[in-house]
Amino acid sequence: MTTIIKNGTIVTADLTYKADLKIDAGKIIEIGPNLTGDEVLDATGCYVMPGGIDPHTHLEMPFMGTYSSDDFESGTRAALSGGTTMVVDFALPAPGQSLLEALDMWDNKTSRANCDFSFHMAITWWGEQVFNEMQTIVQDKGINSFKHFMAYKGALMVDDDEMFHSFQRCAELGALPMVHAENGDIVAQMQAKLLADGNNGPEAHAYSRPAAVEGEATNRAIIIADMAGAPLYVVHTSCEQAHEAIRRARQNGMRVYGEPLIQHLTLDESEYANPDWDHAARRVMSPPFRNKQHQDSLWAGLSAGSLQVVATDHCAFTTAQKRFGVGDFTKIPNGTGGLEDRMPMLWTHGVATGRITMNEFVAVTSTNIAKILNMYPRKGAILVGADADLVVWDPKRSKTISASAQQSAIDYNVFEGKTVTGLPRYTLTRGVVAIEEGTIKTREGHGEFVKRDAFTAVNRALSTWKDITAPRKVQRTGIPASGV
Amino acid sequence: MTTIIKNGTIVTADLTYKADLKIDAGKIIEIGPNLTGDEVLDATGCYVMPGGIDPHTHLEMPFMGTYSSDDFESGTRAALSGGTTMVVDFALPAPGQSLLEALDMWDNKTSRANCDFSFHMAITWWGEQVFNEMQTIVQDKGINSFKHFMAYKGALMVDDDEMFHSFQRCAELGALPMVHAENGDIVAQMQAKLLADGNNGPEAHAYSRPAAVEGEATNRAIIIADMAGAPLYVVHTSCEQAHEAIRRARQNGMRVYGEPLIQHLTLDESEYANPDWDHAARRVMSPPFRNKQHQDSLWAGLSAGSLQVVATDHCAFTTAQKRFGVGDFTKIPNGTGGLEDRMPMLWTHGVATGRITMNEFVAVTSTNIAKILNMYPRKGAILVGADADLVVWDPKRSKTISASAQQSAIDYNVFEGKTVTGLPRYTLTRGVVAIEEGTIKTREGHGEFVKRDAFTAVNRALSTWKDITAPRKVQRTGIPASGV
Amino acid sequence: MTTIIKNGTIVTADLTYKADLKIDAGKIIEIGPNLTGDEVLDATGCYVMPGGIDPHTHLEMPFMGTYSSDDFESGTRAALSGGTTMVVDFALPAPGQSLLEALDMWDNKTSRANCDFSFHMAITWWGEQVFNEMQTIVQDKGINSFKHFMAYKGALMVDDDEMFHSFQRCAELGALPMVHAENGDIVAQMQAKLLADGNNGPEAHAYSRPAAVEGEATNRAIIIADMAGAPLYVVHTSCEQAHEAIRRARQNGMRVYGEPLIQHLTLDESEYANPDWDHAARRVMSPPFRNKQHQDSLWAGLSAGSLQVVATDHCAFTTAQKRFGVGDFTKIPNGTGGLEDRMPMLWTHGVATGRITMNEFVAVTSTNIAKILNMYPRKGAILVGADADLVVWDPKRSKTISASAQQSAIDYNVFEGKTVTGLPRYTLTRGVVAIEEGTIKTREGHGEFVKRDAFTAVNRALSTWKDITAPRKVQRTGIPASGV
Amino acid sequence: MTTIIKNGTIVTADLTYKADLKIDAGKIIEIGPNLTGDEVLDATGCYVMPGGIDPHTHLEMPFMGTYSSDDFESGTRAALSGGTTMVVDFALPAPGQSLLEALDMWDNKTSRANCDFSFHMAITWWGEQVFNEMQTIVQDKGINSFKHFMAYKGALMVDDDEMFHSFQRCAELGALPMVHAENGDIVAQMQAKLLADGNNGPEAHAYSRPAAVEGEATNRAIIIADMAGAPLYVVHTSCEQAHEAIRRARQNGMRVYGEPLIQHLTLDESEYANPDWDHAARRVMSPPFRNKQHQDSLWAGLSAGSLQVVATDHCAFTTAQKRFGVGDFTKIPNGTGGLEDRMPMLWTHGVATGRITMNEFVAVTSTNIAKILNMYPRKGAILVGADADLVVWDPKRSKTISASAQQSAIDYNVFEGKTVTGLPRYTLTRGVVAIEEGTIKTREGHGEFVKRDAFTAVNRALSTWKDITAPRKVQRTGIPASGV
Repeated sequence: MTTIIKNGTIVTADLTYKADLKIDAGKIIEIGPNLTGDEVLDATGCYVMPGGIDPHTHLEMPFMGTYSSDDFESGTRAALSGGTTMVVDFALPAPGQSLLEALDMWDNKTSRANCDFSFHMAITWWGEQVFNEMQTIVQDKGINSFKHFMAYKGALMVDDDEMFHSFQRCAELGALPMVHAENGDIVAQMQAKLLADGNNGPEAHAYSRPAAVEGEATNRAIIIADMAGAPLYVVHTSCEQAHEAIRRARQNGMRVYGEPLIQHLTLDESEYANPDWDHAARRVMSPPFRNKQHQDSLWAGLSAGSLQVVATDHCAFTTAQKRFGVGDFTKIPNGTGGLEDRMPMLWTHGVATGRITMNEFVAVTSTNIAKILNMYPRKGAILVGADADLVVWDPKRSKTISASAQQSAIDYNVFEGKTVTGLPRYTLTRGVVAIEEGTIKTREGHGEFVKRDAFTAVNRALSTWKDITAPRKVQRTGIPASGV
Repeated sequence: MTTIIKNGTIVTADLTYKADLKIDAGKIIEIGPNLTGDEVLDATGCYVMPGGIDPHTHLEMPFMGTYSSDDFESGTRAALSGGTTMVVDFALPAPGQSLLEALDMWDNKTSRANCDFSFHMAITWWGEQVFNEMQTIVQDKGINSFKHFMAYKGALMVDDDEMFHSFQRCAELGALPMVHAENGDIVAQMQAKLLADGNNGPEAHAYSRPAAVEGEATNRAIIIADMAGAPLYVVHTSCEQAHEAIRRARQNGMRVYGEPLIQHLTLDESEYANPDWDHAARRVMSPPFRNKQHQDSLWAGLSAGSLQVVATDHCAFTTAQKRFGVGDFTKIPNGTGGLEDRMPMLWTHGVATGRITMNEFVAVTSTNIAKILNMYPRKGAILVGADADLVVWDPKRSKTISASAQQSAIDYNVFEGKTVTGLPRYTLTRGVVAIEEGTIKTREGHGEFVKRDAFTAVNRALSTWKDITAPRKVQRTGIPASGV
Repeated sequence: MTTIIKNGTIVTADLTYKADLKIDAGKIIEIGPNLTGDEVLDATGCYVMPGGIDPHTHLEMPFMGTYSSDDFESGTRAALSGGTTMVVDFALPAPGQSLLEALDMWDNKTSRANCDFSFHMAITWWGEQVFNEMQTIVQDKGINSFKHFMAYKGALMVDDDEMFHSFQRCAELGALPMVHAENGDIVAQMQAKLLADGNNGPEAHAYSRPAAVEGEATNRAIIIADMAGAPLYVVHTSCEQAHEAIRRARQNGMRVYGEPLIQHLTLDESEYANPDWDHAARRVMSPPFRNKQHQDSLWAGLSAGSLQVVATDHCAFTTAQKRFGVGDFTKIPNGTGGLEDRMPMLWTHGVATGRITMNEFVAVTSTNIAKILNMYPRKGAILVGADADLVVWDPKRSKTISASAQQSAIDYNVFEGKTVTGLPRYTLTRGVVAIEEGTIKTREGHGEFVKRDAFTAVNRALSTWKDITAPRKVQRTGIPASGV
Repeated sequence: MTTIIKNGTIVTADLTYKADLKIDAGKIIEIGPNLTGDEVLDATGCYVMPGGIDPHTHLEMPFMGTYSSDDFESGTRAALSGGTTMVVDFALPAPGQSLLEALDMWDNKTSRANCDFSFHMAITWWGEQVFNEMQTIVQDKGINSFKHFMAYKGALMVDDDEMFHSFQRCAELGALPMVHAENGDIVAQMQAKLLADGNNGPEAHAYSRPAAVEGEATNRAIIIADMAGAPLYVVHTSCEQAHEAIRRARQNGMRVYGEPLIQHLTLDESEYANPDWDHAARRVMSPPFRNKQHQDSLWAGLSAGSLQVVATDHCAFTTAQKRFGVGDFTKIPNGTGGLEDRMPMLWTHGVATGRITMNEFVAVTSTNIAKILNMYPRKGAILVGADADLVVWDPKRSKTISASAQQSAIDYNVFEGKTVTGLPRYTLTRGVVAIEEGTIKTREGHGEFVKRDAFTAVNRALSTWKDITAPRKVQRTGIPASGV
């Protein structure tokens, strides 16, 4: 049983051309003119692109005795609806918990996933067990990326000492350290101070974690990675300060990646000044929304290549959950949705305005992610042999975003009321049509875990350079007796 | 008659994988395992890569009544010998001369070319004729890039006014303006001053055009391009100042490309202090060699993506020609060779040290060039349907560079004595083996002109953004009578 | 006949202390407690500061057959009213005109000046006569600063070649080159294009000279000055791009000064969007007003020391004169007032907000100017022996700025309606009270020309460093015969 | 009994003029021509400048059961010999120790001081006692600056949390936080790693604390100070990375000071590659010496004003003490001398080369320090009423630095063999001649403690700005019931 995508224009990270696609057993098996097969999907007037990959989601994440409201079923359904065909989530061990045990817990959440997925492993504490289990995670479990929280003091946060240990271990294992970069000590004190001053509303969330605090932590993580000889992936880069640190690092030859979120690219801090508490609280995420100058910086980063990928940090909480923080903004669960909206919002505000090209759109939503996380060209590519994770994108299709029509389980949408032009006609996950003209045809449990190997070309090149430039012992003509 | 490249590892700008290649009629017709065909080239232990493209050569360039000493025959032979399968040269109208007439003159030089080639057209003066002929050049002649010299006062140099006219015309035509960025006014005065001070040796060439002068012109060209709504390609970016201007521009969303030369990446200004006049004079080119800090900047730019391509500016003059400048450094013909050495030198100092990956090597020597100049994927790609311009790269093959063994027509080599590891086992131009284990099998006249269309995706995106952000007339409630 | 200023707090660029001042014959003759004398001015509750110096005015400047409307009488009256006790104007030779002749013309305008003044000489063309006269200007006429216009093509503009000649001459003479930094070629083409597009209103003035064009020219002038071995003073630095170029230069050890205007610090580009044509046209000056981000940059420059002085570029045209440009924005005379408002506006928006200290206020309005232009400590100081150009500043005195109450001859004020707190109680010019609690007591003709010597410490240091680092001829072991 | 300094040229931070000085009772009582008095010091051919102030010394500092070898007697004797008339040392409480108790301990060391001195108080731990005692230190003890060590883990180091507490306290008290900026966590791990690799020589000291680690900590401290609303003083800024962070902060309006050491300005990392272990170990200090590019950055900072002062961090250990670290570089006591050499070395390499002017020399060695630490104009000034801490500087006097002739108690000098031109003819401490043409006439116990008040103008301005821009609570139209 083969599927043909006919009459479309294939758009990849570096090519735009007319061709049909033939799919069999979940793979692309032929690309060319006039293909025939069993099922035919008409792509007339459409762009056929690699399905989106969201490198940063938190589905069914435990929180204060409950969970983020989108699980792997609704989350991946929302993803597919918006043209995203894969998510990478985070396994989060409690401090002291085995990494392997945490991974098992997360694996258990994925049985109803509608599309493929992978995991980053979080390092939330340090010890010999973590040191050892990192090897198993990389070599046996197919996970090559480790997340470190520099914020969330008293919970997930690790300190510089722990980060340096872990980054060095990543370098040895050929893995990629990632950071949530905000100075957690300062945020914690700012939170206490704001609360003490009676500043307890959602806007105080933004006040407690300004751009400076993110820029500082980004810079610090970069230096630690450089000293450890590891590349670095900075999640949710939201501001010029963090971006500047990344650019500066790259201009010194460091291998650092930055990931803006679609929210930071298109929404700004004025949302927190909305007189409606719910409106503001629903936008509470870390880092918070910034202003127009920061947005301009992020957009330029995408076209310049100093920022490589666009994610969502999808971590959806209902209004009822957000209200845990009434009277104390530090109790508002951090997170917003976005999985369904990332691709259309980026297309509308990026491609349609000329800020990025179509090819760059594919790069930052899919191909670059697949490359950095080392699952290219199985994912992120339109090549014979690649998984048929595809979106047939109709650049004329339009809608106004509304929570009432969304796939996500929550009761609002931070992009509510925004009109997007550019939507999937079809989304295919490993060759299976999951979305057709807005009709949901997802299959629970269809999604599979994607293994990702360590030792990318970048890891290997960096290790070579670090070896060549390593400290060399000076030969002495004589060493005196010790003075002790 | 088909050719098979067997047992190699294919390395492209974004993939590394084992596969055989099948070539017919100058094109790649199949990529996969266990291919069979008429002629078999063994690539065991080798990387099979897109042949290099040198975006910047001056073959048989007229100079002071003579010509640069490598013509399209020896130049392309040198290129192929080093794994480069295409060159892009410059048609240089004399001020006042028709662009079309100049192109004819350059076309006439190419009949013996051993590999494919294309042209950039230089804009050396401005007028209605130039304005009109630019359209013909783009739409009929398949040339989408226009070079502007900000130096060489009294000869090729154009001023800001002319550049702005030309850049705007490029924007309209969907073409790419390029600049040789040095402040020609300042250089000319510095030359006069140095000569007046008795500073007439080759080292004064470097003194007369310091990095500051290049940085200034680069920055100026960028602003003019931005005002004109055009992208920009800066040739032979040699220093941090120019690179900084490029990075700054890109971080403001501008579409600017930078092209370091292999010479500037690997040789430094100490060459001019050599007590041997000939040694120093042979290294005279513009911009001159810089120091280690500038080299570090350029290398980082290649890995960061702020610089995209590596070229040679191959413009070879014999020692006898260089000696035109004895007693007056301004008469030393500007230029060095490099076509045969670019790929092995970049591999040795870049890939083998870990400064760049193999994939980045392919990107900066071939793929990025093909994309920017809009001839991808015909060139710069290993894809079915692409031209079989290929190099089978033996990473173990080594030699010590020596003028005595080179293809170039000149009597010295600026890399003399440097050992490179990583050389072609085979070089193929459109499927024909031109180099085999160091044996030259080139065919004179095999090379063809490659047409390049205008209106790349980047041009179109930029135009869209410029339209959206164009000045808007303010609506007035009333306008007074004129005061005149 | 002595004058005592009693009970005040003396505030200088580096000191704040209680003391009385004694003045005789126009000079400060004593500073200390409990002084007595003939006339006593009560400074209770006030700060006694060096009178402001405005380094940048255009009084009675010829324009299109008429003149800017404030002459040396009304201009210096406005200055004194706002606490400014000296202005530095510009002698502007027509292209081809003798510098000495131009200076005579300007000298003739000053007979009714109410306070002291000096001149910068403009270099508007180049030739042997200019080269020679520059020496006379410096050595005989007491003018050590030369202004160069990089804009106003076809009128005052000089090109890079001329600037480099002139800057080198400045270096020889120990003088200070200054630049109006905008790329005049680009501005001229932008003007033509905007007019051709029907964009003929005052807002098009701003569109025709964006920040990028100023930044470019600033950077260019800096490089030319560095090559010439001269320091540089950039007038009316209005934007981050220009400021960035200045910072970058200073961080490379160059001696570059930047001069923001009070207008650019406090007014923004939204003024040009005012639906009233007159409102917008009255704000037409070059560079035009910018946005909030640029303002933040300028303010930070004042506290960081990367920008040193605040000026006005006072060049006042009446509404009737502005209306010369109805239907063609390029005919709107460029210039705004500000002499009366600079000090109170800077105090209100700078000192009262904490962006700068009182001492920094004195530095940027007076002391730094006197130092850079080499008339310190005669001017800009509260020291025994200094000229008694003083302002007794009442930090509680307040007014709302209004054209109806201003000294300037024109019929509007760009700061109309702004409330300032912090105004002169007394202004003294060489010991004579010119302003007392808002009452004008100026004396026409009291003002005198202030000579300024060349070869400041900065000039001398720079020359030493340039000598040490000058190009050195390489010793060759043998030079071949010329190849010609 | 009065003293006259005759026939000299007075050079201050902003003036150069011929005048005599009259001194009585330790104060300057008159400045002018032809003064007469009891004792006459001839300053013919000399510059009369404010005596140097070294803001950073560690005299008799406890270390591993012994002490740094220069105490307040030999240290201040060395200072005076080189033209420095005041030192500011550090009171270093042990973690847990009372600040007041520590101050008593340090006070006890000073009885034999030959010149005036003051203290910075170190914050080495945090608690309610520290919080409270800081107020006493500021308000009763005349100390307005608090030092924080971000390095020396397990000893003096404080973490971000402690720094933020302390910086906020400084902001409240109007005091100035200072930091030793190196990431102590990373340094500690690097030390362990290098030792484990057998890299145990003095060069490993430099390897363990590269510029990146200093830049990171500098940036972090700046952000913490900005969040706390405090200015910041960064001690021993040794590298471009730290300097860049300071410049970036200043360009964002922050009040940050940087203090290069004379060692970092004039010595480089090649010292650690000396084959003689003692030679290298004697240069072990933190931060270690850097390279030429870093030196250029520091010099430019001094002329640009982005770095304000030059210090020594004088902390002298004998060769015998240095040898505690044979076999383990982490046990080499950190510190070098410099008190006697700072002024002549800076003059020789700065003023004589034209990198800085004489006035800038005075500013960075004395006046700026006095201003920042709030003891101007009692110190750092040549004004009537100021302390007669003076140096009569002979720009022709020359010597070759040698340990054999130095005042310091140690047996070597890191500047050994360097020739300096520019030395004191006389050094006066509060009017008393301590040095005369190289003859030591110091008086033990002459030195007194200098109180320094809090709430400088900069502190006050910063507080005003922080208040104006403080977070504002959003007014909500309704707040829902809590969701908990």
